[in-house]
Amino acid sequence: MKKQTALFERIGEKLRLERIATEIRNMSMDNITKTKSGHTGGSLSVTDILTALYFGRIYNPRERRLENVLNYDPCDPLWEGRDRVLMSKGHAAPALYATLAKAGFFDCQVLKIYRKIDSPLEGHPAMFQVLNQGRERGTRGVDFSTGSLGHGFSVAAGIALHAKIYGYDYDVYSILGDGELQEGMPWEACMTIANKGLTRFCAFVDYNHLQVDGSVDEINQLEPLEKKFKAFNWEVRTIDGHDFYEILDVLAYFKLKRATRTKPLMVIANTVKGKGVKEIEGDFKYHAVPLTLEQLENASKVFLRRMEEIDQELPKYPYKVPIKEIVKESPPPLPDNLQDIISRNPSGQYNAPTATRIGYGNCLTRLGEYRRLFVFNADLEGACGTSAFCKNYPERAANPADRRSINVGIQECNMMSMAAGMASCGKIPVVNTFGIFSTGRAWEMVRQDISYPHLNVKIIGSHTGIALGEYGVSHQAIEDVGVMRCLPNIVVIEPSDAIQADRLFEKVLLYDGPVYYRIGRNPTPLIYVNGNDFGVEPVLDFEIGKGVLVREGEDWTIIGSGPVLCEALKVAQMARESVQVIDMPTIEPLDEDLIVKAALKTKRIATVQDHYKNGGLNDAVLRIIAKNRLQVEFHSIALSGFGESGSPKDLYEKYGLSASKIMEQLGLTPK
Amino acid sequence: MKKQTALFERIGEKLRLERIATEIRNMSMDNITKTKSGHTGGSLSVTDILTALYFGRIYNPRERRLENVLNYDPCDPLWEGRDRVLMSKGHAAPALYATLAKAGFFDCQVLKIYRKIDSPLEGHPAMFQVLNQGRERGTRGVDFSTGSLGHGFSVAAGIALHAKIYGYDYDVYSILGDGELQEGMPWEACMTIANKGLTRFCAFVDYNHLQVDGSVDEINQLEPLEKKFKAFNWEVRTIDGHDFYEILDVLAYFKLKRATRTKPLMVIANTVKGKGVKEIEGDFKYHAVPLTLEQLENASKVFLRRMEEIDQELPKYPYKVPIKEIVKESPPPLPDNLQDIISRNPSGQYNAPTATRIGYGNCLTRLGEYRRLFVFNADLEGACGTSAFCKNYPERAANPADRRSINVGIQECNMMSMAAGMASCGKIPVVNTFGIFSTGRAWEMVRQDISYPHLNVKIIGSHTGIALGEYGVSHQAIEDVGVMRCLPNIVVIEPSDAIQADRLFEKVLLYDGPVYYRIGRNPTPLIYVNGNDFGVEPVLDFEIGKGVLVREGEDWTIIGSGPVLCEALKVAQMARESVQVIDMPTIEPLDEDLIVKAALKTKRIATVQDHYKNGGLNDAVLRIIAKNRLQVEFHSIALSGFGESGSPKDLYEKYGLSASKIMEQLGLTPK
Repeated sequence: MKKQTALFERIGEKLRLERIATEIRNMSMDNITKTKSGHTGGSLSVTDILTALYFGRIYNPRERRLENVLNYDPCDPLWEGRDRVLMSKGHAAPALYATLAKAGFFDCQVLKIYRKIDSPLEGHPAMFQVLNQGRERGTRGVDFSTGSLGHGFSVAAGIALHAKIYGYDYDVYSILGDGELQEGMPWEACMTIANKGLTRFCAFVDYNHLQVDGSVDEINQLEPLEKKFKAFNWEVRTIDGHDFYEILDVLAYFKLKRATRTKPLMVIANTVKGKGVKEIEGDFKYHAVPLTLEQLENASKVFLRRMEEIDQELPKYPYKVPIKEIVKESPPPLPDNLQDIISRNPSGQYNAPTATRIGYGNCLTRLGEYRRLFVFNADLEGACGTSAFCKNYPERAANPADRRSINVGIQECNMMSMAAGMASCGKIPVVNTFGIFSTGRAWEMVRQDISYPHLNVKIIGSHTGIALGEYGVSHQAIEDVGVMRCLPNIVVIEPSDAIQADRLFEKVLLYDGPVYYRIGRNPTPLIYVNGNDFGVEPVLDFEIGKGVLVREGEDWTIIGSGPVLCEALKVAQMARESVQVIDMPTIEPLDEDLIVKAALKTKRIATVQDHYKNGGLNDAVLRIIAKNRLQVEFHSIALSGFGESGSPKDLYEKYGLSASKIMEQLGLTPK
Repeated sequence: MKKQTALFERIGEKLRLERIATEIRNMSMDNITKTKSGHTGGSLSVTDILTALYFGRIYNPRERRLENVLNYDPCDPLWEGRDRVLMSKGHAAPALYATLAKAGFFDCQVLKIYRKIDSPLEGHPAMFQVLNQGRERGTRGVDFSTGSLGHGFSVAAGIALHAKIYGYDYDVYSILGDGELQEGMPWEACMTIANKGLTRFCAFVDYNHLQVDGSVDEINQLEPLEKKFKAFNWEVRTIDGHDFYEILDVLAYFKLKRATRTKPLMVIANTVKGKGVKEIEGDFKYHAVPLTLEQLENASKVFLRRMEEIDQELPKYPYKVPIKEIVKESPPPLPDNLQDIISRNPSGQYNAPTATRIGYGNCLTRLGEYRRLFVFNADLEGACGTSAFCKNYPERAANPADRRSINVGIQECNMMSMAAGMASCGKIPVVNTFGIFSTGRAWEMVRQDISYPHLNVKIIGSHTGIALGEYGVSHQAIEDVGVMRCLPNIVVIEPSDAIQADRLFEKVLLYDGPVYYRIGRNPTPLIYVNGNDFGVEPVLDFEIGKGVLVREGEDWTIIGSGPVLCEALKVAQMARESVQVIDMPTIEPLDEDLIVKAALKTKRIATVQDHYKNGGLNDAVLRIIAKNRLQVEFHSIALSGFGESGSPKDLYEKYGLSASKIMEQLGLTPK
């Protein structure tokens, strides 16, 4: 009798899910057609997987009860212990939205305003966030913004890492498209999720074999796909992505065998693009083409008929098994004691030329006990100044609570998006690599996953400027400030000496929002120290958004950011003219008042930065001048193109950043 | 006797190569130590592979003679039929340079000025180029600039593709680091090289198991590496990377079995980091730490002693086998007949609102017979307007000479660098994807592989601006002009209507250098047509770097780029003030004269662009104003942040880009 019951319940479960999936298909197709916009085929192919995740239940034989596949609460979309679902194939948003509506996150009526202006349903999923003053943003139920392929998988990796480090008990699911796997970025995450032992991770590939321009196999085949994932150290199952028995079985395996599984689980789900709408099944042309009203009508008839059929059938398969209640347990919140830690760990003494990366690293180290801090590296741990922190809080620390760093090896894109995932869980990731890679290689990750959702990630760019020297052009970041200023929401800071790099980073950590911190490789002179070479009165309290008037003057103002400020200070010492010098560590947002004051005082303003002539400090200052209609003579000292290999000193001389060359360009007279 | 001879010759070959490799090690270590800078361990581990490539000879039993492994001519470094070597692990430059010096590309003395300013030996390999007026740049013998990991492999893929398409007979070799394989980008190339049948391709992995921060296995392991490559459809051999017999055997297989091999060849070469200098062998700390003078002295002694030993041994193993001469055959040069093709294929008529991507696509199609043109797509063939071209010149055209397009699927980074590789062979690649991906996802590829070596790649960015509409933020590129302007050497163009998009692209193709072409998805009004809505006198000849005064006026100047210019024209029609309107399709470099003239005429200048407020047309114009000390009132109409999903019309209204909103912001009075 027991076996019969189990079979009955299984059939009942399948029918129940099929009914929900059919309803979801109906809603999403209606949605797309009425909006006249949206991704049709890929929404249909993924629906059964989503349905199984959000509505499926598996039988736990040990506990003798059913468990929801996914632990979530539609009334509490930000419950930090919830399981996460990352739709890496973000264009299937209609399916996700219909699923979330059905699951109770929001009213089904909202689906009607998909892709409309002022709608909470964006074309691609927008992360649900509650901002200051309780203002809501994005879509309830969406765990992270996706749309650009590859990112969701890496973000998911970061969220899974978060659970492991900070003691959370949730699972992470990521749904990938097949075309998406032609991207390199998912293979970074693939490698890392497995190698870092993130076993509470289940990914699905919606393997419908079609992409925008045609067949995946013809364009750039993925086969042998199973072998690829196995070679990347995943456990792999291949299933029929439209068979609820198979989907549930694999989910049951994932959840119930948690204690014995040693690898993350990759489920290759063979699916049919357009599944459920017979006339478009397997037709790649329906990637982003809505059904016509007529096609929708026909499809709806089929859907509704099936739903009716199931409504007749379902009562024959009643449930008699208890279901597990959702229990909301979380680890105790971490103390918000950064200010206290700062007070107890003031910056140390500096007395010799020191690289700004060392100053930054010292700050990171002395504030390391702040448990929200998590440090990411991509094989440049020491180079970026984080050795001491990583020694105190190594990846494999004996005490799990101390494992607050990770080295993912050479993969900046995955690293950046993992950090974004961790920030979405309320931690403060500090991401380290050379500036050319953090702002260049991973630019689009910063844009989509940090800038857009305004997440609290601290992006370090080391070894910047031609001041890097001998490495040469490939590594000398001279566009990093510019490309970061091109992004909304990113605060851009370049400290001018190691002391400032150290002390200002406190403020960077206290600030709630993304920051790009530009630092250098080679030792540079100290400015903010007693007895410095420049006659500067040391200031020791730095604020984000505030410049520092380091030297008074009447005729000229030179505004500089970064260690090249020393050259500006030398200019002021060498010139007959009276030159005031302003240190402007925060380039975005600029200290407008200070600039205006300076412009009103001296009629000549020059900016100097170890940066290409477009996009940097010069452009930022020029905008302030224009905005305030200041009548000044403006000069920009910057690089006119790429540098080359050489000593920093030789390079500054050749490329016009040395004090003497600056004086020449500005037409100043030596004393 | 024959067998004995063969054995003798084999031993002789091994000794000969070992001597060369020892000499190369001696030179590169001397180089790094005296420079006090450079990558020690990785240069030593790769030396034997490089030696075998550049100096090795294999026996061809059918021809009964020796053949050089690599076909090259040190006196003719740009011989277009040469085999290519892409040092994707660019930091091993010292080994490459010593090899090239030994091979006769340049004098060994040059090694002494490695990484020095004004030296032809950059910190990371710089491609040899002969520019206008015969000026040389880079290092003789270096086939492509590398340094940022992952790129070289993709560039190599492009160069291999070039051979296949254009009928060249060379082989392509790429040397990868192991840590480099933690990057995702190489897996894109890996997939594509195999799937596109590029079998004249041999890659080596210098598998020394160490990276900067330690052991590859501990940081993010690559194993099982052989299985990975097999799953990506390569033929794989694993060898001892310091055993010349094994290296030569695998190279012999690669070359002699060319006709029967069906896959590219991946050679996993197990190596020892620091090989040849006993005291640092296997020590990851010597990644970028030079030997001390004392260590160098000791190492040199060992090297010189071994060289002497071999000099004693070698005469016992004389060669009696003839060696194949290098034959320089190339396909006949392609006609340089673009101007003629343009004359014979003028642009067609337009008479309804049309998307600029369609205009661009029409130009590409009508000039398609130009055989230097090669079109790249990443699964957005139709979306980017290239369907017709790709139909005429499909990837699998019956006539191989017509196969002038390729669709690599969803992998923009690999695509961009492949295009760079093809451009390095003198062809004109046109790279298509959405602007957020071409300028964002692949920004660093544009920077390293196109901007730095100033290569003739045409980068298309479609679906740009909030004018994209419903897709939403993830796809609406609003920073693309800014991030491209941050790069030296890139010409940045945004046509304002489909007619201009069509006709101006002729000039883009005629121009010798990299161009970013910004186009839009949705139909926009025609400007340059008789009877247009704006009273504009149609101009039909457009030039790069030249703006068009489309409407005269006295009080205000509005400068716009792209289809948003229509809003500026509407403003001019609606306002009581007299507004002159300038179309500025080339944003970098700007038409300085036209701007100066406008500023002298009207004292108020506004710029308008469907772009974020930093980095775009506004900043470019402001610099001209500042440079020329023009006393004007400057206004910038741009986006203050990300957009959202919605109709283009609604979005323009909400985000201040509609004519009425522009008027409001500028304080203009409606008639």
